[in-house]
Amino acid sequence: MNEFDFIRRYLHRQQHDADVILGIGDDAAVIRPRAGFDLHVSSDMLLAGQHFFADVAPADLAHKVLAVNVSDMAAMGAVPRWALLSVALPKLDETWLNAFCDGLFAFAARYGVCIVGGDTTKGDGVFNVTIIGETPQGEHLLRSGAQAGDDVWVSGELGLAAAALDNHLGNVTLPDAVYVLCEDKRLRPTPRVALGNELRHFAHAAQDISDGLAQDLGHILRASHVSATIMAEDIPSLPALCDWAGCKRDRLNLWQHWLLAGGDDYELVFTAPAAQRQAVVDAGRRTQTKVTRIGRIHATAGAAHQLTILDRANQPVLLAQAGFDHFA
Amino acid sequence: MNEFDFIRRYLHRQQHDADVILGIGDDAAVIRPRAGFDLHVSSDMLLAGQHFFADVAPADLAHKVLAVNVSDMAAMGAVPRWALLSVALPKLDETWLNAFCDGLFAFAARYGVCIVGGDTTKGDGVFNVTIIGETPQGEHLLRSGAQAGDDVWVSGELGLAAAALDNHLGNVTLPDAVYVLCEDKRLRPTPRVALGNELRHFAHAAQDISDGLAQDLGHILRASHVSATIMAEDIPSLPALCDWAGCKRDRLNLWQHWLLAGGDDYELVFTAPAAQRQAVVDAGRRTQTKVTRIGRIHATAGAAHQLTILDRANQPVLLAQAGFDHFA
Repeated sequence: MNEFDFIRRYLHRQQHDADVILGIGDDAAVIRPRAGFDLHVSSDMLLAGQHFFADVAPADLAHKVLAVNVSDMAAMGAVPRWALLSVALPKLDETWLNAFCDGLFAFAARYGVCIVGGDTTKGDGVFNVTIIGETPQGEHLLRSGAQAGDDVWVSGELGLAAAALDNHLGNVTLPDAVYVLCEDKRLRPTPRVALGNELRHFAHAAQDISDGLAQDLGHILRASHVSATIMAEDIPSLPALCDWAGCKRDRLNLWQHWLLAGGDDYELVFTAPAAQRQAVVDAGRRTQTKVTRIGRIHATAGAAHQLTILDRANQPVLLAQAGFDHFA
Repeated sequence: MNEFDFIRRYLHRQQHDADVILGIGDDAAVIRPRAGFDLHVSSDMLLAGQHFFADVAPADLAHKVLAVNVSDMAAMGAVPRWALLSVALPKLDETWLNAFCDGLFAFAARYGVCIVGGDTTKGDGVFNVTIIGETPQGEHLLRSGAQAGDDVWVSGELGLAAAALDNHLGNVTLPDAVYVLCEDKRLRPTPRVALGNELRHFAHAAQDISDGLAQDLGHILRASHVSATIMAEDIPSLPALCDWAGCKRDRLNLWQHWLLAGGDDYELVFTAPAAQRQAVVDAGRRTQTKVTRIGRIHATAGAAHQLTILDRANQPVLLAQAGFDHFA
């Protein structure tokens, strides 16, 4: 099987999408944007050993490479529509590819995404997805809209993926029942597309949490020229993980690291006016997504934005590392 | 310098594009498609050691990663508009990045492309570009439109990039003056966007030559369910390279390999009705692009398409390898 056979045999399985004029198989795909809609475009590159373990199950890998991109659409309040997937693999193994493609198309179908193009080449496990989504013209959920007086919210539960990773790396040994839940979150994150679409109507700013809450909220603060204070105590996590981490004092640093600087949860952090608290709660209920208020936006004193994190005694939490930096 | 500084400092230099509602710096870029236009999307991934030498000059590399994608737009008859660039680099070296970005933005400006997004991560030299172009709705230049009776044409000159590569690999030693021209073609190919746009109005099928003429013309034949006969003698190349290759009988195989199976020239192969010969010549003149008629499309006898290549004695040329296959 060569690369053209691969394209023909695996990537032609697609659900129907009336706006795809021409799918995979030519020099480019042709899509027809809907009148009155803006397009949102984003790319993420994942490398073996860097973003995932080389022995990850192919269906989980497929889930993840699409999920991290779909999550960017969620953070914009956009509906994902089309994706392009470039892969560099050491060889074309049919069993592996079948499982990968099954996972890929299952996830794509679940989120209404059509794979319209990409590239296949030889390499040590590199996956790049470009995602294209849409919103009605002018309706975007940006990082730059946060205002003094806004509440700070997060979706779902944080710290799970980072805890699972630390377990993988041998830094901790979680109880089995806790590990299974954390590992599921690390491998198969759930992009918050439905919530993002609701938030678009009244939230002021949003960002997905891929590199850690402190760092990703920091992007909102920087773009919006505001500061924030959040309560570490209020950051939602898995209750069983809280219990395990909370029962020993020497786990405090680790716990704070997972919650505040742990990446890969792919939840949303967003800000909304205090007057919209009920709207946020309603949006969470309609989309069956947990939403938790964790702090407040305030005006920046001076030029630089500042994120203050307070513990239960109202003392500032100091982080050793704000979040993930590939080149640190 | 970390990855966020990199994004801020290097990728914000952009030409103005009124249809870019939001550029680099949020979870996604926002573009506003023009009413009445279809979008063409394509991705190509290039890896160090696989698609380029690790010590390539950064500006040349930037040229190439964009050019191979812009060439896909040319083959569709589309105008490239926006691109997303994902890069995996071992480190963020400022001198290297400056030169790379200079090359990137120079090429982008020349072709009217705005870089709207991407990703930066750590890795051994991986570059993925997704390009988005446009045509008026329904006006696409596909692989699948070739008809019996069409002429087969190519743009520019073929075999140069493959000859330069063989020189690099130590398989041949070209005369210096010839090598310089071939190497320029290998490093800095010229996507035929202007020609592709003209051809859209009357050509039946087109494809860019990235993996060798025989293989890429084969894609047209397969997609169009037709066969073709081309004359090896008529395939245009660099005259000085022809002279060098033609003067020794033992260079014949190499020469045929470069012309017919050599990749990386990024010229167009296209078919057009015989009645449009003057239109093709005029399009070549208007866009200052050499165009050469090299053969004819005919109906397929039986199910499989066939490409027949004849030498000057009207004998079939048999190729050892039809073209480039990453997994061969």
